[in-house]
Amino acid sequence: MKNVALFGAGRIGRIHASNLAALPGVKLKYVSDPMAQYAGELAQKYGAEVTSIDAAFADKSIDAVAICSSTDTHSDLISRAAKAGKHIFCEKPVDLSVPRAIACGEAVKAAGVACMIGFQRRFDPTFNEAATRLAKGEIGNPEMLVVTSRDPGAPPAEYIKASGGIFRDMLIHDLDVVRWILCSDGDEAAWLSATGSVLTDPAIADLGDCDSTAVTIRTRKGRLCQINTSRRAAYGYDQRFEVLGSKGLLQCGNHTPSEVVQWDATGIRGDKPENFFLQRYAAAYKAEITHFFDCLQTGAAFRTTVADGVAAQKLADAATESAKSGQAITF
Amino acid sequence: MKNVALFGAGRIGRIHASNLAALPGVKLKYVSDPMAQYAGELAQKYGAEVTSIDAAFADKSIDAVAICSSTDTHSDLISRAAKAGKHIFCEKPVDLSVPRAIACGEAVKAAGVACMIGFQRRFDPTFNEAATRLAKGEIGNPEMLVVTSRDPGAPPAEYIKASGGIFRDMLIHDLDVVRWILCSDGDEAAWLSATGSVLTDPAIADLGDCDSTAVTIRTRKGRLCQINTSRRAAYGYDQRFEVLGSKGLLQCGNHTPSEVVQWDATGIRGDKPENFFLQRYAAAYKAEITHFFDCLQTGAAFRTTVADGVAAQKLADAATESAKSGQAITF
Amino acid sequence: MKNVALFGAGRIGRIHASNLAALPGVKLKYVSDPMAQYAGELAQKYGAEVTSIDAAFADKSIDAVAICSSTDTHSDLISRAAKAGKHIFCEKPVDLSVPRAIACGEAVKAAGVACMIGFQRRFDPTFNEAATRLAKGEIGNPEMLVVTSRDPGAPPAEYIKASGGIFRDMLIHDLDVVRWILCSDGDEAAWLSATGSVLTDPAIADLGDCDSTAVTIRTRKGRLCQINTSRRAAYGYDQRFEVLGSKGLLQCGNHTPSEVVQWDATGIRGDKPENFFLQRYAAAYKAEITHFFDCLQTGAAFRTTVADGVAAQKLADAATESAKSGQAITF
Amino acid sequence: MKNVALFGAGRIGRIHASNLAALPGVKLKYVSDPMAQYAGELAQKYGAEVTSIDAAFADKSIDAVAICSSTDTHSDLISRAAKAGKHIFCEKPVDLSVPRAIACGEAVKAAGVACMIGFQRRFDPTFNEAATRLAKGEIGNPEMLVVTSRDPGAPPAEYIKASGGIFRDMLIHDLDVVRWILCSDGDEAAWLSATGSVLTDPAIADLGDCDSTAVTIRTRKGRLCQINTSRRAAYGYDQRFEVLGSKGLLQCGNHTPSEVVQWDATGIRGDKPENFFLQRYAAAYKAEITHFFDCLQTGAAFRTTVADGVAAQKLADAATESAKSGQAITF
Repeated sequence: MKNVALFGAGRIGRIHASNLAALPGVKLKYVSDPMAQYAGELAQKYGAEVTSIDAAFADKSIDAVAICSSTDTHSDLISRAAKAGKHIFCEKPVDLSVPRAIACGEAVKAAGVACMIGFQRRFDPTFNEAATRLAKGEIGNPEMLVVTSRDPGAPPAEYIKASGGIFRDMLIHDLDVVRWILCSDGDEAAWLSATGSVLTDPAIADLGDCDSTAVTIRTRKGRLCQINTSRRAAYGYDQRFEVLGSKGLLQCGNHTPSEVVQWDATGIRGDKPENFFLQRYAAAYKAEITHFFDCLQTGAAFRTTVADGVAAQKLADAATESAKSGQAITF
Repeated sequence: MKNVALFGAGRIGRIHASNLAALPGVKLKYVSDPMAQYAGELAQKYGAEVTSIDAAFADKSIDAVAICSSTDTHSDLISRAAKAGKHIFCEKPVDLSVPRAIACGEAVKAAGVACMIGFQRRFDPTFNEAATRLAKGEIGNPEMLVVTSRDPGAPPAEYIKASGGIFRDMLIHDLDVVRWILCSDGDEAAWLSATGSVLTDPAIADLGDCDSTAVTIRTRKGRLCQINTSRRAAYGYDQRFEVLGSKGLLQCGNHTPSEVVQWDATGIRGDKPENFFLQRYAAAYKAEITHFFDCLQTGAAFRTTVADGVAAQKLADAATESAKSGQAITF
Repeated sequence: MKNVALFGAGRIGRIHASNLAALPGVKLKYVSDPMAQYAGELAQKYGAEVTSIDAAFADKSIDAVAICSSTDTHSDLISRAAKAGKHIFCEKPVDLSVPRAIACGEAVKAAGVACMIGFQRRFDPTFNEAATRLAKGEIGNPEMLVVTSRDPGAPPAEYIKASGGIFRDMLIHDLDVVRWILCSDGDEAAWLSATGSVLTDPAIADLGDCDSTAVTIRTRKGRLCQINTSRRAAYGYDQRFEVLGSKGLLQCGNHTPSEVVQWDATGIRGDKPENFFLQRYAAAYKAEITHFFDCLQTGAAFRTTVADGVAAQKLADAATESAKSGQAITF
Repeated sequence: MKNVALFGAGRIGRIHASNLAALPGVKLKYVSDPMAQYAGELAQKYGAEVTSIDAAFADKSIDAVAICSSTDTHSDLISRAAKAGKHIFCEKPVDLSVPRAIACGEAVKAAGVACMIGFQRRFDPTFNEAATRLAKGEIGNPEMLVVTSRDPGAPPAEYIKASGGIFRDMLIHDLDVVRWILCSDGDEAAWLSATGSVLTDPAIADLGDCDSTAVTIRTRKGRLCQINTSRRAAYGYDQRFEVLGSKGLLQCGNHTPSEVVQWDATGIRGDKPENFFLQRYAAAYKAEITHFFDCLQTGAAFRTTVADGVAAQKLADAATESAKSGQAITF
């Protein structure tokens, strides 16, 4: 039995709590959150106790921590968890600062604990199936990747202010997909060009951010990638990618709540995509946390590590800079 | 907290056990099965105890039983559970004999317990969405229903021998769909014609059964339904229906493991349907057992009762007779 | 150069005229129609002359006639064309009376002319591709066929009165599809059950006809077929079939005016099917008439002959009788 | 009756000849081609005469010329046709040199003749339907465009050598789509970044060209566009675009030879796209030439003019330059 402390009882903390609670061999022992009420409700629902982060670190029976607190707390909690000898599952990003993220990696290494970063898309049934077939060579050598990533609507200005900007906040996932799909053989980004616009809400421009972006990456091997994102899609959460290989194409479509198609005088109409990330990635979150404990059990390597977090962060920084300057970055 | 005893630790019993165990407010207390090993493994997995059926009935703390044992035990267990004052969830069918099924309904009524029959398709996200839209009038008045129902492969001869024949064993689900979709306003089957063939395995003919069937039903209101079934589809488990209404059509497609589409020199290829009923109806089984306990909690009526089981059974009997005689049955 | 006389300048005559005019090596010489204005307009458009049917038969330079006049004139015109030594393309049906249709076949044979019956679905790119793959064995041995055939709306009562009823008028095409797809190896219908309802317009009941039908056919080899039809589909002209074989399924979808899919707050919406038969079967009509002249040129056998017309007519008669009696017909 | 001279009897000339020949009110009078055999065969097929370009220009009965000869002859022929007072349909591009293309526009204007440039995608049923709905406001204001454009295989090195490079040869069509879809309200490209790789054939690198490209354009209004192209797709000719608007998305799929879907043990498989541009754009070529003569008849403005050819050429030049320098271009 692995005992776990969960830090953060917000939206994403609740998802992980629910999945942790259903895992055989895992016990959600503690929940911590600055909002006592949130922590209390979540703890009660799954038979856990509310405690402080310090107390959780001090409890020798705790094997692992799940860091689901706000982004600005991640690197501090990773370092402290490492020192306390706890294994770590941490939501993305490691840190908005690349040097601090690198330092986290070093702390983890020094302590000899295991640390996994939550890039849940790698566990999505559709995306993972595409990655698996690509690895099996079903479409030959990968050549081009087109990533479409759109939210149903922009988050509140408050959120955007602390987000690090759209490239670090939203595209970090897409940039991890690029590395996963195009660079699994050691290839790396060699050239990146990004641009952005404000098309949905002028308030976003006032914050110095943008809501619509286009990023292009060329790898050392000459593979090409285009990412297009928007903070708003009238039809909902749009999460797709297509990878062209020398022998074919793998196209990842959205998931839908049902497979009903309605035929009437207006056309032939299927469901909109699953509403947002909690729905679309429900299976991915479950598979991700299962993978974390499976690896702890077997000693296998995590699919996503601090190094992946750092690498995606570097690309996000480069995209931010390129969009600002209007010029490409070479690595 | 509701305490539950599960009878039957086979394929379907395990599904229900897993879903019961995850339900807040529900405790899987006992597991019974003639195969001690099966019962033991399942009980251990979910922290339950192995016990005899008699002991389960005798335990006053047991609120409900889930009957997942072989078909020939259903009616006896329903009657005994009713007498013991336990609420009942029973897998379809109630009984292969309509009179015995009717007697079950009477026993349940006399005892004042609640009894739900497991027609899980009514809880499938796709089928249920179609039924919901139909009820909302999105395609007007229903006129025609086409049900396609195919298994990936025929069961062993041993199974078929005890099954009551393809109409009672396999089409019982399709016939319940007909009643659900076409007869929800009190309409009823008025005319039925069935035919069948043996196309996949001559051994099925030797057993006096068939593996491919075509059933047509006309209701009192003149609505038409066609069901086509096969015990074997090379591409897997095919579970679809289409209902034509005065204002449009609702088409229910299969579910797939992923939304990957592969484009290559052979064509543009999507996934085969989910492998078989345990996969396709995973969400349905979960929703079904949740519904059972929700109704126990709130006192609401079950979506599927013994009366539904009896009605589907009567249609299955009529189809069996029609296929044998080659002539239509009128009700 | 083949000279052709066209009888009938209505909707279907105009289609054939347009396709005839575009065929290299074919000259549309005459147009005849009881409505002088129709004949005149069509003749002028394609540089033909208006003439009487008698004159066309008398003109030795005429190689072939295309009979697109009303159904009740078909058998008479076929017989006269045969006597005049003209090759014949005739729209379905040969005749509403099976004996008269058989007599046509004899007249044609006696005269040694070639006669093709216009079952245009056999030339539809989608249906024909399915038939070709089936013949190549791509899905193994055919076992079950489901035909869905729905018009966008019922024709006027006047039309229905003279139509011979829905089975002879509308299902004749579907019944030919059954023979084409399930019986190409010499198999034949052994058992047929049909039923029908009036669901769209009570005026149709007053005429003794129905607007919604369900037909089931079992062949000598035990293959099963279900046809469902309606005179009205709110979403337009629905022309599909699916054939299950021992190794897979071939599913023929509708054709659409464009491949645009619109994603918005209401869902993900593709085009409705092509509006009606003139649009859906535009390519089929063209391929059909090309086939006619290709066969005349090469001496190859037509894909559809008087015998096919007679066979479909017999099934339509049987369906009419079965729907009336409520009992199955065996052949 | 409009008399037309066709210059060029190659692949594209034959397409236009076939469509011209079928147009009522249009007479294909002359065919010219440096390859006498090609000219002769084509002229004979459609009842035209072989003649020299000079003679065609000199013939007063000629109303219009269709320029389908090699790219390096276009601007000269346009200028001469203008001087001869002939209306002009010219295949894209106007000229590989922007100044020469501009000069063509001036010559045309000075002569007062009409000149249409053949960007056939604007006449494709799917693309045109999307443009029409966009213009109607069905998805609100356009924000992002993703264009996927892939050939089934690279042309021979000889062709590539004279092509002006992939941006001028292949992407010219995609760049016209960008202007058509994103800039119809007078918006214009403000920023462009392009990159390319050689991934399919090293011989293409030897020619100083690339076979895979990624182009991004930001307009003055901040709209974003990404184009991805490849000279090779194992699954055939891939021609799609998606435009995101403030209220939805319009997605243009490929066209397929049939609507057959095959379900078998390998998956659920639809047709590959139409083989190449002659098949995919068959309807577009027909609509395009019809539009040309319709406009000549009615005096309406062409959908695509020399100015459109020049504008697309400028974008192609900018993309060529950007891909070479690795830096973005601002306009």
